[in-house]
Amino acid sequence: MQSPSDPIGEFGLIQRFFKTGANAMQSNSSITLGIGDDCALLRPATGEELAITTDMLVEGRHFLPGANPELLGRKALAVNLSDLAAMGAKPVGFTLALALPKADSAWLEGFSKGLFAMANEHSCSLVGGDTTAGPLNICITAFGNIPTGKAIRRSGAKAGDDIWVSGELGDARLTLAALHHEVSLPELDLKQIEHRMHQPTPRVELGIQLRDIATAALDISDGLLGDLKHILKESQVDAQIFLDQIPKSAILLKQSKAIQNQFAACGGDDYEICFTAPSHQRNIIEKLSNSLHLSLTRIGQTTAMKNAEAKVVLFSDDGNPISDSDTTILLKSFDHFAS
Amino acid sequence: MQSPSDPIGEFGLIQRFFKTGANAMQSNSSITLGIGDDCALLRPATGEELAITTDMLVEGRHFLPGANPELLGRKALAVNLSDLAAMGAKPVGFTLALALPKADSAWLEGFSKGLFAMANEHSCSLVGGDTTAGPLNICITAFGNIPTGKAIRRSGAKAGDDIWVSGELGDARLTLAALHHEVSLPELDLKQIEHRMHQPTPRVELGIQLRDIATAALDISDGLLGDLKHILKESQVDAQIFLDQIPKSAILLKQSKAIQNQFAACGGDDYEICFTAPSHQRNIIEKLSNSLHLSLTRIGQTTAMKNAEAKVVLFSDDGNPISDSDTTILLKSFDHFAS
Repeated sequence: MQSPSDPIGEFGLIQRFFKTGANAMQSNSSITLGIGDDCALLRPATGEELAITTDMLVEGRHFLPGANPELLGRKALAVNLSDLAAMGAKPVGFTLALALPKADSAWLEGFSKGLFAMANEHSCSLVGGDTTAGPLNICITAFGNIPTGKAIRRSGAKAGDDIWVSGELGDARLTLAALHHEVSLPELDLKQIEHRMHQPTPRVELGIQLRDIATAALDISDGLLGDLKHILKESQVDAQIFLDQIPKSAILLKQSKAIQNQFAACGGDDYEICFTAPSHQRNIIEKLSNSLHLSLTRIGQTTAMKNAEAKVVLFSDDGNPISDSDTTILLKSFDHFAS
Repeated sequence: MQSPSDPIGEFGLIQRFFKTGANAMQSNSSITLGIGDDCALLRPATGEELAITTDMLVEGRHFLPGANPELLGRKALAVNLSDLAAMGAKPVGFTLALALPKADSAWLEGFSKGLFAMANEHSCSLVGGDTTAGPLNICITAFGNIPTGKAIRRSGAKAGDDIWVSGELGDARLTLAALHHEVSLPELDLKQIEHRMHQPTPRVELGIQLRDIATAALDISDGLLGDLKHILKESQVDAQIFLDQIPKSAILLKQSKAIQNQFAACGGDDYEICFTAPSHQRNIIEKLSNSLHLSLTRIGQTTAMKNAEAKVVLFSDDGNPISDSDTTILLKSFDHFAS
């Protein structure tokens, strides 16, 4: 939040892009004081609490060197808004800490353009930040409002709840595999799905609408099965998941069954919402899907916990449970791709 | 806030240190939900608002490679608490995003020990975080409570206010100069002052006490004169500063006059508070100094703005103003040291 302990020698340049962008935004009534002091000041409305999340993106780890800065700006904020969505929170503001090897005007222009476009789409204001010289690193902390007690936690699922996911899973992983030449994918197909890796859409409106419907929720960033485990563990339930019911794009469905299952069940970077809800909510959820123009798909259900450790039993296309050893093989294949 | 999009292959190790530390802390009544979900939940008390600040520390830029991890853990949080202090906010919680080249158990143990020691001293809870592989980078976002409308902004100084600083200035810069062999300093002297660089003390209680006294405040991280300019610019006033009144340690006072002035007036990393207050508050401020066992020194005053750009006029020991060209020389010498 200090100004220039650091500044690459060209603090003015950085400030130009971010301060201008921040000031150009519609101010949010929760924000009493924005960028430019030691701290920002936020005042949640009466009866609201503040959801807070932070994500750090590192070059070479979360994005490739030379990645398009505009898309990166969008994505850096989107992954944080996705966490807010998973709690049912409405975005309010964010801080940006940025380490840059050098003050590159073209890069900053693209990055700030993408960042503020995403921010404006969700009325989420830049309220503070820090810039320094260093290996490229983007750390955003985002804040959202939610009526007190309405946050959708990971711990609320009950045995017998339906398990749902939004959108389609696996295309971000398929894009990465194509870029790494792990799979063969026609150029036209890649063009159709690559936005799923570079431009994830935070499901903000879905999260808000789910406040009174879902019993538990999270966003899928590390792969459906791995992330679902967090809900199961926190809620102390097991789960049954039907592999063929996991929603997949027409392009992923052209791949081998093994790759379909691995990428849809275990691929990362989806930023869709996985949530649980009692079965009596099915009609309401289907109506919600229609009103949001967003597919919401039932992929299984939670079950009473059998052992101390939460477990997912997978079912194959023929409706039979997949043995533990075959499940291990499925997950192992994924590890091979991920390594 | 996700768990392991990233995790160095040893997420458990990292989680062990931070989750254990977070859970061991006394919970703060403002925190509805701490670490372990998509977001943390904070609920400021009625009549309070939330101050938010973020700082990113990069190896080789803000600390030397191989820096003691325990001191680094303390300092990473301290510099954020210092920003909260400068607004008069009481620390509540913080998020930690950490990029690490590898999961080094000894480093993590030291870092988390220092971090939680500082956190416990100020009842400030770790509420969320993110860990990833990458060049060492520590990004903390901290939150503090403040009664609505009581935040000490940079914009409130009036012409004729006294200008004060806490503690002594320049010793962190002197330590750095000694480590870089820019100045000669006896080993015993270095031992006495090096904590000023490695272990800054956030002036949290001072900030809280100044809520009804100070008209403007900030923390000095980039050097007194540079930081003071932010107050002048935001408050639209000029300033007169008496160089010999800037508080300096006995050890800095052994250096040449040029170095004394440069380091005390322009050296970075002090993390003391610079604030303005009307002259009728002098007695109260002196009493506050006694009760906090912290020196508070009057170093000048604000004056009506003469031109469009805020200006600091420096006065030398003999009480005469230093010419613009001599001031430039003073600042130039600093640049030489800093480069």
